[in-house]
Amino acid sequence: MVKYDKLVKNAAGRLVPTIVNGIEQIPYLGVGKFKPTGRKSAPPIASCADYPDDGNKTVPTLKDALVKAGLKDGMTISTHHHFRNGDLIANQIFDIAHELGIKNLRWFPSASFPCHEYLIKYLEDGTINRIEGSMNGPLGKFTSQGKMKGLGVLRSHGGRYQAVQDGEVHIDIAVIAAPTSDPFGNANGVNGPAACGLLGFALADSQYADKVIIITDNLVPFPCIPWQIHGNYVDYVVKVDQVGLPEKIISGTTQITKSPDRLLIAELTAKFCDEAGIIRNGFSYQAGAGGTALSIGIYFSEILKERGWKARFIRAGSNQYPVKMLEEGLVEYILDGQTFDLEGVRSMRENPGHVNTSPFTSYNYHGKGNFATQVDVVILGATEVDVNFNANVVTHSDGLLLHGIGGWQNCLFSKCTILPVPLFRDRMPVIRDEVTTLCGPGELIDVIITERGIAINPLRKDLIEKLKGSNLPIKTIQKLKEEAERICGVPEKPQFTDEVVAVIKWVDGTIIDSVWRVKEEGR
Amino acid sequence: MVKYDKLVKNAAGRLVPTIVNGIEQIPYLGVGKFKPTGRKSAPPIASCADYPDDGNKTVPTLKDALVKAGLKDGMTISTHHHFRNGDLIANQIFDIAHELGIKNLRWFPSASFPCHEYLIKYLEDGTINRIEGSMNGPLGKFTSQGKMKGLGVLRSHGGRYQAVQDGEVHIDIAVIAAPTSDPFGNANGVNGPAACGLLGFALADSQYADKVIIITDNLVPFPCIPWQIHGNYVDYVVKVDQVGLPEKIISGTTQITKSPDRLLIAELTAKFCDEAGIIRNGFSYQAGAGGTALSIGIYFSEILKERGWKARFIRAGSNQYPVKMLEEGLVEYILDGQTFDLEGVRSMRENPGHVNTSPFTSYNYHGKGNFATQVDVVILGATEVDVNFNANVVTHSDGLLLHGIGGWQNCLFSKCTILPVPLFRDRMPVIRDEVTTLCGPGELIDVIITERGIAINPLRKDLIEKLKGSNLPIKTIQKLKEEAERICGVPEKPQFTDEVVAVIKWVDGTIIDSVWRVKEEGR
Repeated sequence: MVKYDKLVKNAAGRLVPTIVNGIEQIPYLGVGKFKPTGRKSAPPIASCADYPDDGNKTVPTLKDALVKAGLKDGMTISTHHHFRNGDLIANQIFDIAHELGIKNLRWFPSASFPCHEYLIKYLEDGTINRIEGSMNGPLGKFTSQGKMKGLGVLRSHGGRYQAVQDGEVHIDIAVIAAPTSDPFGNANGVNGPAACGLLGFALADSQYADKVIIITDNLVPFPCIPWQIHGNYVDYVVKVDQVGLPEKIISGTTQITKSPDRLLIAELTAKFCDEAGIIRNGFSYQAGAGGTALSIGIYFSEILKERGWKARFIRAGSNQYPVKMLEEGLVEYILDGQTFDLEGVRSMRENPGHVNTSPFTSYNYHGKGNFATQVDVVILGATEVDVNFNANVVTHSDGLLLHGIGGWQNCLFSKCTILPVPLFRDRMPVIRDEVTTLCGPGELIDVIITERGIAINPLRKDLIEKLKGSNLPIKTIQKLKEEAERICGVPEKPQFTDEVVAVIKWVDGTIIDSVWRVKEEGR
Repeated sequence: MVKYDKLVKNAAGRLVPTIVNGIEQIPYLGVGKFKPTGRKSAPPIASCADYPDDGNKTVPTLKDALVKAGLKDGMTISTHHHFRNGDLIANQIFDIAHELGIKNLRWFPSASFPCHEYLIKYLEDGTINRIEGSMNGPLGKFTSQGKMKGLGVLRSHGGRYQAVQDGEVHIDIAVIAAPTSDPFGNANGVNGPAACGLLGFALADSQYADKVIIITDNLVPFPCIPWQIHGNYVDYVVKVDQVGLPEKIISGTTQITKSPDRLLIAELTAKFCDEAGIIRNGFSYQAGAGGTALSIGIYFSEILKERGWKARFIRAGSNQYPVKMLEEGLVEYILDGQTFDLEGVRSMRENPGHVNTSPFTSYNYHGKGNFATQVDVVILGATEVDVNFNANVVTHSDGLLLHGIGGWQNCLFSKCTILPVPLFRDRMPVIRDEVTTLCGPGELIDVIITERGIAINPLRKDLIEKLKGSNLPIKTIQKLKEEAERICGVPEKPQFTDEVVAVIKWVDGTIIDSVWRVKEEGR
């Protein structure tokens, strides 16, 4: 298998391979430029005649299920990340694969977390060939150091659905950890001791994988209500003692910021949205789970309360703050893609207005539209932004791959995309001449808000017009960059070798950039 | 297009064509014998780039939507029947097609009703080539008289999903009448002035049709919650004044029987289930919407109440009676496929335990199992039964095609299938040497209950054993037939020509029987 071949310049001027892990690729063509002409992936037709008459699909162990599913060398195994750093299943799968002497697997998680550092030994011994999915923290560093056998492929949540739907990634076996399931495989994330909220990231896996295994610690009699995963897609059900650690779904970033600079950024963002006329009765927004984003949500909620308004919906990553707004009647619906704390889980179980969504409904670019375009304003983070409003979320300025894309690329299609970022981090300016890794094209990024000023993308003449005469510190992005460099100096570029270690997919499956192996000391 | 070709004998000994409307067919091979080897239908990959940025897919009229969808000669147009005899849309579609001079359409409804008699003029003038779907009442008679240009194809609800999923029927344009929708096309049946309950019969259509049109009289701002149809599958949304007559979803058969004979049959059925040990704490059942079936449900509910038991679930066609049981705590869940009255609609809107299902979850034989096999006992009707327990639901003993199959074939896979039928109707014995049309193979039909006795299928040795020593009037089916013939005489066979007018599909897409043109007086 060719890890990758010759590099070509894509429409964003980035060097990208045209073959990745043996599969031909399309270089990024520009926003909305690539038009798919094929047909969706077509799974084999099943027959009830091959499934138990009484609907009971349970098998004793995960190993039994994997063996029955035909686990063998070179297969693609998928998992979801609703347990985030509390996932207990992915590591077990590869322990079993290793025990069975299976080699060369592709792990296709919807995201990986520090708890998966454990898998480095299997990446080293060849049990796992590569990860296609976010490579957060230790796995990202491992990849950046050029140690992964295959090439990493990073996709957004929507891009992951798109890749499976379009047949670009064929999943042989999907293993879906479920807080509650019945013996038929109907499963949900809202009930049971390990309730994690929802299972939307496993939707594509359930629909398109050849074999689907549900693993649960809470087996209930048929029917499991609600069913977020349809048992009609499921082959085997395994009961274990513990399927995940729900207390670990809480990310460290879901606390409101206490930094005065970041609070200022949050305040400026809320004021900007207000003056731009974005905040209105019936508006909608999506704010991530970072500390600044949470504070912005609180500003929004105060404005709504003051004026007696109500938001139509919040797209979330939910946690206690949107839940409070829902329960106080400040928003009609939470359209939730993943719960970031246990209040989110509780609310999804109790509130009919707290609705579970999936990458299909919210983010899939190869659908007949998706929800992302219908959000009035989205607040996102970035590790770097450049003077053309291009942004990076996966690598740091030292070149290390440390984050996944998540829903970030998909959200850029909202009616207004704002990146509230500090002007510098650890004396490293965030606004650069060019981003280390291109994740989002500048034409989709409307506003950069820092503690020292706000830059509006020149393409958004409407916003520039609306903010004329504002007291807000509106500046050009060049001006913001200069201010940062005046304080911190001009930053050095990260040092790379000429080896590609991973690629970044755009929402349409084309390759928007490459991630390069970092040059380590002594090399 | 070859309407049909030479006839062959299938595994049930029935003569069936091997080509139907130009498409090659597989004759029925026996229960569970046909193993599909292909892949599911693969719809074209869409792109958000081709859909409105703001998610607003509304177009002014149904005609506009049909024209934009590319309506042309020979296409397949699908509709659903959740409004039953109150459907206002199907007739409009073909008015528009006729106005545009379009010919040779295939109408693929999930069922047709007497209100669609209006379409006979379009069947006559060639606007519609044929109906593939149930042909109730006037359309059935029209077909039986050999007047339809193409060959009729009757499928069960599950078989319809299977046919679409498997690519056997390709839908060009699906028109989905929805009581509530948002401009993106998220739609449901529970809200709005024309609320009809759910939209499950349109699920396959939304997933697999090339173009999907939602037509509604209640357009709400995004997001329409709940969404039973995903807007991500929808191309166009049309707002009209009235989408359906919800009061007409009430079928004349959803009233409890007052006939003493039928009440006796209902009582015998309940007693049989009790003595067979089927009724227990946590059991499940499905009873149709006929008068006898409703009375059986009432007997069941009385037994549960008396003993302090609770059913786990009722599979329904819901109406006021199961709803009352749900609200009185006599059953945990109603798994509902279509609502038969407005109490059903209300309950689905209000009760989290009243869950909407679809032919995919409940009936699709080409899934990884389905719900039908998990029902403890199902109570179904039949127009005829033969001495081998084979049954007919589509034609009457005079040979006329007057009913659709509905979920009837799919339900036969329950743990115990009971047909409570009168021994004769209008002095015509119901038990025959051979059924006029074979819809369900005898090996899946366990018990026949008449007012003069109960016949247990000899294959069900377990049931025969359990009922040993019972006071219930257990008899052989031959004995029941003789009793009927003693009273009514030996019935004459219907008179047919040698022309096939329609075929009956089995749940796996094979052809189980043909429907023959009736011999009319003077011919």
